[in-house]
Amino acid sequence: MTLEAEPRRSAFPTVSSAPEGTVLTSLPRDLPVDRATAAARRVIDALLRTDREDPDLDRIADELERAAAHLEEHADDLDERMFDMWDGDGVARHDPVTGHENALAPPIVVRGRADGSVEGRVVLTLPYQGPPGYVHGGVSALLLDHVLGVANAWAGARGATAQLDVRYHRPVPLFEPLTVAARAVTRDGLKTGTVGEIRLADGTVCVSVDALFVDKTVPRPQRGS
Amino acid sequence: MTLEAEPRRSAFPTVSSAPEGTVLTSLPRDLPVDRATAAARRVIDALLRTDREDPDLDRIADELERAAAHLEEHADDLDERMFDMWDGDGVARHDPVTGHENALAPPIVVRGRADGSVEGRVVLTLPYQGPPGYVHGGVSALLLDHVLGVANAWAGARGATAQLDVRYHRPVPLFEPLTVAARAVTRDGLKTGTVGEIRLADGTVCVSVDALFVDKTVPRPQRGS
Repeated sequence: MTLEAEPRRSAFPTVSSAPEGTVLTSLPRDLPVDRATAAARRVIDALLRTDREDPDLDRIADELERAAAHLEEHADDLDERMFDMWDGDGVARHDPVTGHENALAPPIVVRGRADGSVEGRVVLTLPYQGPPGYVHGGVSALLLDHVLGVANAWAGARGATAQLDVRYHRPVPLFEPLTVAARAVTRDGLKTGTVGEIRLADGTVCVSVDALFVDKTVPRPQRGS
Repeated sequence: MTLEAEPRRSAFPTVSSAPEGTVLTSLPRDLPVDRATAAARRVIDALLRTDREDPDLDRIADELERAAAHLEEHADDLDERMFDMWDGDGVARHDPVTGHENALAPPIVVRGRADGSVEGRVVLTLPYQGPPGYVHGGVSALLLDHVLGVANAWAGARGATAQLDVRYHRPVPLFEPLTVAARAVTRDGLKTGTVGEIRLADGTVCVSVDALFVDKTVPRPQRGS
């Protein structure tokens, strides 16, 4: 059964229709999958910090393997899962930056500002480390790419990243509040130019980015075909 | 006690001293922390695929919370842990791209080629998804930034990313073998120019990158001071 031939139109809020401070990313829900994902995030972080000589570490590994096996045994068929994952209002819960169902994501909550920009706050810990005590340069690029996409949606634009030019001005510290901000600045047919930056609490810009997005989206999965 | 005042000199292999095919990243070890991390990676992936209505999901969340609490209770002091993490021969085990102790990492194994390039193979799954069925553009940037750094080391250069210019030519598919390749191409004093790409098995280039690194490293943590 084909539910629809075209990608679903999202009811994504935009700066012209929604108030200052509108949350543009998914929020945590009081559901077992969110709770399990939040716990998995704690496990990832703690595995980088825990005592390597702890005699119980073998038992913990066994327990994690059993949990993984249970979750895998109860996994949906991939096509079905892909359909469900991409169903709904367009606010993804599974992406690796803001997704509450993805333990890779910090996750960042991004809000729209009345001036057309968007921003999110985050504190990053050891899993995101590059140089000693600082955020991995590729992680900064990942966060920026995603938040730029949110800025496009807030501006009423959309599209896939075509160019992402990242400039690293100074190392981005772990364990400190960071702001990831972005804003769509140009529109030319199917192309959207978007800029963004990662700032410290005092406003110091550590990383900036200038990107081009092209409205050439991948269709959402359809049920059956 | 200060063990040494300067960053440790690494014995990192280079194209002029090591043979074709030399592995430049960490390898899995038969240790509980590696096994637990590999299991955590399976949990992250399975949480995105598992049946959201599974009545046992609450119990799994409880188990993951208990595992996290145990690991956190046995975590080392952060300064001590940072020292240990950065001790040794310079092949990190904890980074978010190649680290066998970091569940965020796929992890990619990177090998040096006699022509001066490096490459790694990887198959990415749902946690790394951007558009439906494809790799997140920011994840491609993350993998490339890291592998470019490995290419610099193989060329005998080093440094932090100053500029990372990523070009997206076509979507990068999930669930297919990908090659992430890189090569240092220019040296000018403290600056190294490095290029890289993500290719499909048939050689099609999906993403390419042109980057500049500057030899301005963050010192490794010292014990005491």
